[in-house]
Amino acid sequence: MKKTRRSGNRRNSLKANSRKSPSGTRFAEAATRLAEIGKGFHARGWVLGTSGNFSAVISREPLRLAITSTGLDKGSLALEQFLEMDEAANVVRGEGRPSAEALLHLAIVRGVDAGAVLHTHSVWSTVLSGSHASQGGIALEGYEMLKGLEGVGTHKHREWLPILENSQDMVELGDRVSKTLRASPGIHGFLLREHGLYTWGAGLQQAKRHVEILEFLMEVLVRSGAAQSA
Amino acid sequence: MKKTRRSGNRRNSLKANSRKSPSGTRFAEAATRLAEIGKGFHARGWVLGTSGNFSAVISREPLRLAITSTGLDKGSLALEQFLEMDEAANVVRGEGRPSAEALLHLAIVRGVDAGAVLHTHSVWSTVLSGSHASQGGIALEGYEMLKGLEGVGTHKHREWLPILENSQDMVELGDRVSKTLRASPGIHGFLLREHGLYTWGAGLQQAKRHVEILEFLMEVLVRSGAAQSA
Amino acid sequence: MKKTRRSGNRRNSLKANSRKSPSGTRFAEAATRLAEIGKGFHARGWVLGTSGNFSAVISREPLRLAITSTGLDKGSLALEQFLEMDEAANVVRGEGRPSAEALLHLAIVRGVDAGAVLHTHSVWSTVLSGSHASQGGIALEGYEMLKGLEGVGTHKHREWLPILENSQDMVELGDRVSKTLRASPGIHGFLLREHGLYTWGAGLQQAKRHVEILEFLMEVLVRSGAAQSA
Amino acid sequence: MKKTRRSGNRRNSLKANSRKSPSGTRFAEAATRLAEIGKGFHARGWVLGTSGNFSAVISREPLRLAITSTGLDKGSLALEQFLEMDEAANVVRGEGRPSAEALLHLAIVRGVDAGAVLHTHSVWSTVLSGSHASQGGIALEGYEMLKGLEGVGTHKHREWLPILENSQDMVELGDRVSKTLRASPGIHGFLLREHGLYTWGAGLQQAKRHVEILEFLMEVLVRSGAAQSA
Repeated sequence: MKKTRRSGNRRNSLKANSRKSPSGTRFAEAATRLAEIGKGFHARGWVLGTSGNFSAVISREPLRLAITSTGLDKGSLALEQFLEMDEAANVVRGEGRPSAEALLHLAIVRGVDAGAVLHTHSVWSTVLSGSHASQGGIALEGYEMLKGLEGVGTHKHREWLPILENSQDMVELGDRVSKTLRASPGIHGFLLREHGLYTWGAGLQQAKRHVEILEFLMEVLVRSGAAQSA
Repeated sequence: MKKTRRSGNRRNSLKANSRKSPSGTRFAEAATRLAEIGKGFHARGWVLGTSGNFSAVISREPLRLAITSTGLDKGSLALEQFLEMDEAANVVRGEGRPSAEALLHLAIVRGVDAGAVLHTHSVWSTVLSGSHASQGGIALEGYEMLKGLEGVGTHKHREWLPILENSQDMVELGDRVSKTLRASPGIHGFLLREHGLYTWGAGLQQAKRHVEILEFLMEVLVRSGAAQSA
Repeated sequence: MKKTRRSGNRRNSLKANSRKSPSGTRFAEAATRLAEIGKGFHARGWVLGTSGNFSAVISREPLRLAITSTGLDKGSLALEQFLEMDEAANVVRGEGRPSAEALLHLAIVRGVDAGAVLHTHSVWSTVLSGSHASQGGIALEGYEMLKGLEGVGTHKHREWLPILENSQDMVELGDRVSKTLRASPGIHGFLLREHGLYTWGAGLQQAKRHVEILEFLMEVLVRSGAAQSA
Repeated sequence: MKKTRRSGNRRNSLKANSRKSPSGTRFAEAATRLAEIGKGFHARGWVLGTSGNFSAVISREPLRLAITSTGLDKGSLALEQFLEMDEAANVVRGEGRPSAEALLHLAIVRGVDAGAVLHTHSVWSTVLSGSHASQGGIALEGYEMLKGLEGVGTHKHREWLPILENSQDMVELGDRVSKTLRASPGIHGFLLREHGLYTWGAGLQQAKRHVEILEFLMEVLVRSGAAQSA
């Protein structure tokens, strides 16, 4: 994240204006909503420790995302713990570093034209992404809950949830994410092995819905014995 | 749900009157109570995504139900997200479409003279309705908790919880629901395969109690190993 | 519970005085505390449906208990849903019937000189009391958590948690409870088969602690695989 | 804990001054934060009964810790239920006895220079510390969640979580804790067999993060089947 350095002066002047401008209002609204989502996910145990990270697109031209800073308790996020980031992961509003996984958020926003990206790190996704890693993904089929995924009209839909090997090299991992999105058009999320879920939506409400649906289905699989028999 | 079209003028005039009339009061009271129930169920993970739907009879002659609109987060329902529906699933108050499963609610209200119908979509019901589908249902017997079901006086009661194949054709599925209610008099609920639970009661309090009891008993079965040995 | 009939006049006059007298104050305090406990237990899923019941001794001479009425949602108890009951299970304050299991509360209060009796009905106790019924009880040994039971000073303590066959005949079951308490001095609770846990304490705080400890240990056993291997 | 006797006069005068002095402010701040943490952990079921205990260093020279009194419900701690303790486990502020395990807190503070020590007592740690006792510990490797442990930079990190036999002799157990910390430099926590987790951090926020991470990873192991196959 060496690109995030910039002058303190510029940062301060941006901060002073953050509430007055239209973009400042969009930023504050997105941050407020992301903090609410984080609180709910933390209560469910989906973003324990400092795991998980969340972003929302607040401008398309130029591309701007509100995104969580790195290393925070996602259950009690404050407005000043969010950053505004441009298309190259530079911080253009707020203080601190964006999450190390900011490049994955950008890859997803570009790859599927998402308006919001949510990354959770639940027990269910950690268990299943380990037990099913050798199969390259998890097939979800026959569940009514699938109908809640955008564009899905029947429980007979077969959703493929790819599992990518985890990595600490975000450039390399971001490339693999982009390739996965191209190779599997129409997917609604993917797993990083023993790491967690990435999903997205046109907006935050849709992305939150996708988190609930995919976390639910992974819990169903584990409780059905899938982790033991994989 | 093509029957739900009606003029904007009629809708608006109904809406303006919704709080003043006795039926408007009953509608608002039912909606308020259903929203509370939804919030509690969402916290327990029984209506994640936009799953689940709820209704309450607010008039018998003519038949009128307060029912959730389709596609909503059941954890944060607002009064304006409820509809009033007549005996043919026409919307007579409020905006939006009723849940796709409105016809099932009507089939239940007519079939067992219910005053409230609650549909939850838990991990437990999804797991068990899959593992026991080939048996056509689940037998619950010997549990003290059964005594909480209306009309049951001993833990020795044997409750049959039928499992119906899931479908997206609500007319066809509604017919199968009606047949099941006639074929199994005295049941307190049924499952749709890999979809969830429908239960009901004379009123909302009783229907909520039935949800808690049947969800509890399904969790007991899964934790006793029933899903693996089915 | 045929003993509970009494004149409406006497009931009303008692009610009017309930807050002013010292015993009325003790009754109201106990009811308030029991309602709080009920709310917490309901949130944990330990008293779903209308399961569970709670009592506290508010006078020894003569014996008087504050106890929940029958058939209530234990997550939202109001003061007027509690009764004061004498040593013969007659209602001497409040309206409604005491829980059908009032005779078990009295048997425990007399048998071990308890000041409070709490009955929960969790998934864990339902599963284990079924899987271990043929063994007549469950042995708990080696757990540090045992030290929280009153009078226990080491994790090496062996706690025997008897399992009694369930019954709807409360006179008969009350007799068996009394015999169990005499036959197993020093126990801190017992299970009714596929029904739930009874535990107690010198006061409400101690009884609540015993619920948390015994429910915890039963969850440990189930998650350790005890239900499958019994 | 016989060292904790001291005159009532000294205690009272200390108490009167507790809010005005700088050390009193630090004590009150630490106690407030520990109470919040306790409430959250109790809600998750990690400190049921009166299990668990928490401390924070409020002064290094001389060494002073704010620590929970013994035998309390950790879900509703009040300021007056905290004690200030010196390097010899003498109480120098507040009333009551420190937790029996105060000597373990001191051993950890000295052994790893911790600023806060948190002890939880979850189902997960109880199950795993029993099933893996013969192996002397649990290896955690490959999980992204490990990166949240202070100083860990990759999921490929191998964390060793030692399991110590439980004991009621705190002097003896404190010695074994000190030896374990010397023998396994760099560990972030340890388990007491069928008792629970001890972890720590430079401050309370870090220690709380370590609790969430280690409890999460133990839950992952149990749900992956580790308890059965150990």
